[in-house]
Order: sequence, then structure tokens, then C-alpha cells
Amino acid sequence: MSGSLLEPLVLEGTSKIVLLVLDGVGDLPLDAKGFKTPLEAARTPNLDALAPRAALGRLLPVAPGITPGSGPGHLGLFGYDPTVTVVGRGVLEALGAGVPLGKGDVAARANFCTVDAHGVVTDRRAGRISGDASAKLVERLARDASRFDDVEVTLKAGKGHRFVAVLRGPGLGGAVSDADPHHEGKSIPEAHALDGDPASARTARVVNAFLARARDVLKGEPVANAALLRGLSARPHLEGYLERFKLRAAAIAAYPMYRGVAELAGMRVLPTGDAPADAFATAAANWAAFDYFFIHIKPTDMAGEDGNFDAKVAAIEQVDAALPALVALHPDVLCVTGDHSTPVPMRGHSWHPVPALVAGAFAGADQLPRFHEKTARQGSLGTLASKDLIAVLLANAGRLDKYGA
Amino acid sequence: MSGSLLEPLVLEGTSKIVLLVLDGVGDLPLDAKGFKTPLEAARTPNLDALAPRAALGRLLPVAPGITPGSGPGHLGLFGYDPTVTVVGRGVLEALGAGVPLGKGDVAARANFCTVDAHGVVTDRRAGRISGDASAKLVERLARDASRFDDVEVTLKAGKGHRFVAVLRGPGLGGAVSDADPHHEGKSIPEAHALDGDPASARTARVVNAFLARARDVLKGEPVANAALLRGLSARPHLEGYLERFKLRAAAIAAYPMYRGVAELAGMRVLPTGDAPADAFATAAANWAAFDYFFIHIKPTDMAGEDGNFDAKVAAIEQVDAALPALVALHPDVLCVTGDHSTPVPMRGHSWHPVPALVAGAFAGADQLPRFHEKTARQGSLGTLASKDLIAVLLANAGRLDKYGA
Repeated sequence: MSGSLLEPLVLEGTSKIVLLVLDGVGDLPLDAKGFKTPLEAARTPNLDALAPRAALGRLLPVAPGITPGSGPGHLGLFGYDPTVTVVGRGVLEALGAGVPLGKGDVAARANFCTVDAHGVVTDRRAGRISGDASAKLVERLARDASRFDDVEVTLKAGKGHRFVAVLRGPGLGGAVSDADPHHEGKSIPEAHALDGDPASARTARVVNAFLARARDVLKGEPVANAALLRGLSARPHLEGYLERFKLRAAAIAAYPMYRGVAELAGMRVLPTGDAPADAFATAAANWAAFDYFFIHIKPTDMAGEDGNFDAKVAAIEQVDAALPALVALHPDVLCVTGDHSTPVPMRGHSWHPVPALVAGAFAGADQLPRFHEKTARQGSLGTLASKDLIAVLLANAGRLDKYGA
Repeated sequence: MSGSLLEPLVLEGTSKIVLLVLDGVGDLPLDAKGFKTPLEAARTPNLDALAPRAALGRLLPVAPGITPGSGPGHLGLFGYDPTVTVVGRGVLEALGAGVPLGKGDVAARANFCTVDAHGVVTDRRAGRISGDASAKLVERLARDASRFDDVEVTLKAGKGHRFVAVLRGPGLGGAVSDADPHHEGKSIPEAHALDGDPASARTARVVNAFLARARDVLKGEPVANAALLRGLSARPHLEGYLERFKLRAAAIAAYPMYRGVAELAGMRVLPTGDAPADAFATAAANWAAFDYFFIHIKPTDMAGEDGNFDAKVAAIEQVDAALPALVALHPDVLCVTGDHSTPVPMRGHSWHPVPALVAGAFAGADQLPRFHEKTARQGSLGTLASKDLIAVLLANAGRLDKYGA
């Protein structure tokens, strides 16, 4: 739905909405498990109690056949069209690393690499050096390559040869080419602006100066003597939840990337623990102060990525066991869904629609016995784009006016 | 579907289409009624006879989560995108009051109100004066404030303090701000053009002259001494059914608003009685002269608005009892649906998808035993936007050519 249709209809209210996201929860029926999916195989008495009096359906994260990354998956759930609102790779990496991004900041994914005497890249990943070795190099760069005129460069070590670079300073733009040949045997190309904006040209100059300084600093280092930057992108400006939806929104997520994407949408990020019970306790402790709670559960996705059916079942059961504490808060609207499917047999994100449950006084009672991929196909919500879920949640919360007379 | 795709495919034909709209028929399962909806609880032997040999499905009036007013609800059913084709509030009010609107006419919703000696509004609704008192004031205005140069102002009393004003004259535009402070304690703002069109500025001048004259005429009236105008809008130009769809279309509706919206779409409005049997008799009496019959049934919506489950069941049963007379006309395509849901527990319009039935030689036979919200979820039509229904009806009527070779 176009923002211009929905937003003028949004009403003030006192009702409360909970969006409980089981990351990657959607799955496929597994032959070896009697063609059950993890949601189907899990013992979920508390979800089972919700299901018959709720509306079930399925969410399509981006479009048929399209497998979303975590950014687009969550942007859709939050009500942003993920094909229009794009969060750059550098920005997502920075958010995932827990590097705070301010307005105007530009972030990049970075690698340590090796170059020969002629500047030709001989190993893009510097022999996949250890995180420890990489962290030491990041420290050296942070000491000697962190300032370029009025631009400050913040670095944070990641896994193995990876790190994140964030540029902060006046007048930086995000439309900048990669300073990365993407193949061995080539020189590191200079970054250049991808649009006509002088701000992007300014960023490109800083990137090139940073990489030249890095070459100097790392000269003679045995494991890595240069760095590459790619996925340069500016912190996007999203109209936030309060402006768009008149919702004081809280985000409860243990992993930095999800906190970061929620913060982009103007949600207040609350400190929380790892377990579902911790997340629900955080919601309870902050119940009065917010209208909307995004609660993110990661282990379902991790189990899917690991191809571990039983671990995914266990992760679901852990959520279900903790669920009564959330239900006891009596949210006016409770939605349980995922940002995408991460099917166990695929060991990765997929394009399959994600089951969704919406419980509320006027959601409808589909009388379906449980909540999983197969019942979801029969539910009254039908299959809708993730980006349209927010309208359904607002409607159920009595927070949307009628369209037209 | 965009008009530009559909319209070039429309064929001439002799087949006949009936669109039977049970206003607000969609509903929610009611706990107290064994989780049945009114359609499910109603005794509907004649719909039951149609259902197994028809295609069932659901219509989404505007978009997920969006609750339509009657205007957008019907525009969608008629094949106009209700987010693109907008009928202004003044126009809808005038149509609902049975005031005919010609090309170029501008309509407004109006209130009687009270102002103090400084022109500050003290009661926007003039103490919610009775319709009778209001009608007398409307008569006075009609006598003394009905002509401003070459613009004629037509007034019609409505409920309580409300009335409708229609401006007719050359060169009037509809993009005009409200002459209504929307709150007590403020002066009545002058109307002004909302676009750069001199026609809108002309309308604003007439509105301001009318309201000044109204103040003079009503001076000293004890109950109301001023008027407010809002929702100014010009009669929209819709490409009509004959031009767009090569259909000679008739509208059979007892309530003025639905007659009015149908007339905007180029339908011929036929006089009819209140009961479903009257409507079907009107169709029978005019069967040869038209290709398409829009038949509107109001009591289902009224029962929903009243929160009266049993009345809604009775309204549905009344339609079903009369249905054989319609079926006996042997329409090539018969569609039974609603413009939106009006769930009994909500006592108002809602966003929930509306069940739809399409019967015809090539519609398919879904073999579903009855026609209601739950069977509709399983039907072969799936869930489609209301605006796309017309293409399905035309296709079933053999009135759409193949797209591409």
C-alpha cells in the first residue's frame, strides 16, 4: 500500500500492538520428519490456545520468489516497502556490528587483503586471517587512520578478515563505488561518486585517502598489507513510527542488526537478555511507555541456517513456553510471524511465504486448530505483502480511520 | 488492473451480467453464535443451490487493513481503482441526499451553527437542532441566498443540523478549502482555492459570498445564526460503463447514495422498491434493455451497523427467498458479494475481505457446499482486489478478448 493512502488515516489511540518476530520461522515439510515443518512438529500449547481465536495467513516478504536479507525482511514487517526503502550493505553491516549511525554517517563493509609490489590484489581475504589478528590490525588503523580533515573514521573488527568502517563528518554522501576489485589479480580501484552529488565525491576522496593511509600503516605487515571497502551507503532517512503511525514504538532484540534496523524506523531500542523470557519480561517492564513492541527472536533462524530441525523445534518450543508472560500483558493486537523463511533443508533464507497469526478482538476467529505453514494457508488473512501487515495491525488496534465516505 | 490493459480487450456482446451487492455482508464469526457468521447462520437454500456450481472467493475493497466508505467500496466493485478515482465528501453527501449533480457542479456538506457577536463559532452543530427546524432555515436560505451572479446554489436539508449545498454555474472548480474552523472558539475561515486553478478560486468566492449572505439572512435567528461548508468537491468525471466496458448498465438501488455513485459510472438508474423482491422485479421488467445490472441491497449493512446479528441473518434470508426470481432471468454471469464487511461485533464498516460468488457457464464449480466467509477462503477465485472483479465478470460473460497472441 502506498504510504500516502495509509498515513492520513492513522488515528491516535491507547491500544497496544505486539509484533513477535521469530526470525526465519517459516519452513518446508521435511520428508524425514513425516512431512512436518518445525512449527508443526513443535509442542506449542500456548500458540495452540491462540490459534483458533486468531486470524491466520501468510506474509510475502518482498515478492514471489524473492529471498530477502534481514534488512528487507524487517523493513517489510515494519511497513516500509523494501523495494523502495533500501538500507545499504555498509549500513546493515555497521548496525549488525553495533556501531551507532548518526544522520549523515556513511558506512562500508571492509576487508583486509594482500597486495603485491605493484598494488595488485593477491588475496582479497588475506588468507582468511583470524579475528584476533584482524582486530590487532583494526587497532593500528584506528590509531593512525582515523581522521581525514574534518571526517572521523570509526572502525570495528568483525569476523575473520572483515571489519566495518563508518565515516562521520559534514557533507558526506553515500553513492560511492566500491574500492574493491572483487577479484584477485587486479589493482584496487579508486572509489568514485556514483551520482552528481559533491557529497558523494567528498566521501570518495575520504575513502581513497583512508585506503592509501591503510597501505602506509600496514606496509610490511606479514598477514595483510591493504584494505578494501565496499557497500558504501549513508544512513537512510526513514519517516519513523511516531510520525508515520502515531505509535511510540519499542524494539526488543538481542542482536545488534535488528536493533539497528528498528532504530532506523524510529523505534526506541530497549536493553534485553537473550532468551524469549527475557524479551517478554522487557516488554512487561516497559509496557506503559509504548504503544508498539517489536520483539525479535533469533534462534529459529540460526537453527534453520544450521540445517538443524530439532534445534529449530526447540527454539520454537522455548518461545511457546515463555509466551504466557506476553499474553498476560493483554496486548490489543498480538502478531506472531517471521521476517522470512529459513528452511532447514536449505540452510539459508528463502522466498517461501511466512506463516502469520494476528490475534485481537476483531481479528476474526479462524477456528484453525494450530499455527503452522499448512493452517496458515487456510486462514482469513490470506497471503499479503509483509509491508501491508502494519495496516492490518493498525486496523485491528482501532487506529485507522475509514477511507472515503 | 489498469484500465489501459483491460479496456482494449473489451468485446461487444449480448450476454448479461448481474452484480448483486449485499451491502456490508461480510462479517466475523461470533463466539455467542457458535463462531458462525450471519451468512453462515442464515438459512439460504437458494444461495446453497448456486454455491457448488459457482466460483467462490474474496474481495479486498481497497487494500489490506483499509476500511472503505460506501463510495470507495462501490467504485471498486464497479471497476474503478478507489485510490485513484476519488469521489469527494460533498459529492457523496449530495448523491446520498438525492440531489442530482451535473457536469461542473460543486457540492459541499453544510452545517448550521451559532456564532457570537465577534463571529466566533460557539456551537458547530447549533445545539444539534432538529431536522424540522433545520429544514425551515434551509427554506429561508433557498429563498434569499440561492443566486450569486451566474451561480445557482441548491440546498437540501439533511439530518439534524446538516444540509447539502450544490453550486451550479460556469467555471467552478472543486479544490477549495473548508469554510469551517472544525472546532468551537474560532472564527469561520474564508474558503480559498487549494490549487492554482482560477475555477477553484471562483468557487471559493461564491462559498464566501453564500456564507456572508447566510449570516445576514439568519441574523437574529435564535437556534442558528450562521452556516459552515466543508468537503467541497466537484462531480468527478468517470469514463462510463458504455465507453469503458461496452455495457448498457442499469442500477437498481433504493438508497440515493448508491444510485448516485452508479450514475457517476454512467449507469441508468431505475426506479425500484425497497425489498429484494422489488429489486429483482425491476431487473426482470428491464431485462431486455440492459447488459449489466447492479442491484444494491441495503439492510445487511444496516443490521451490521446496529450490531444486530439476527437482523443481518433475516436480511440475508430475505434476499435468498427472493433470489429464484433473479436466477430465473438466467443471467450469463451472476455475482453475489458486498462492497465491504460490516461485522456485527464492530457495528461499522471494516477492512475484512468480503466473500464473493461468481456463477456462470465457465466460472468453475468449486463444489463448496455453501456461500459464506469460510468457504469463500477456499474458493477458486482466491482473494482479489474489488477493482479487478469487473474483469472477471466480463471474462465470464465472454466479453474480453485474449491479451496478446
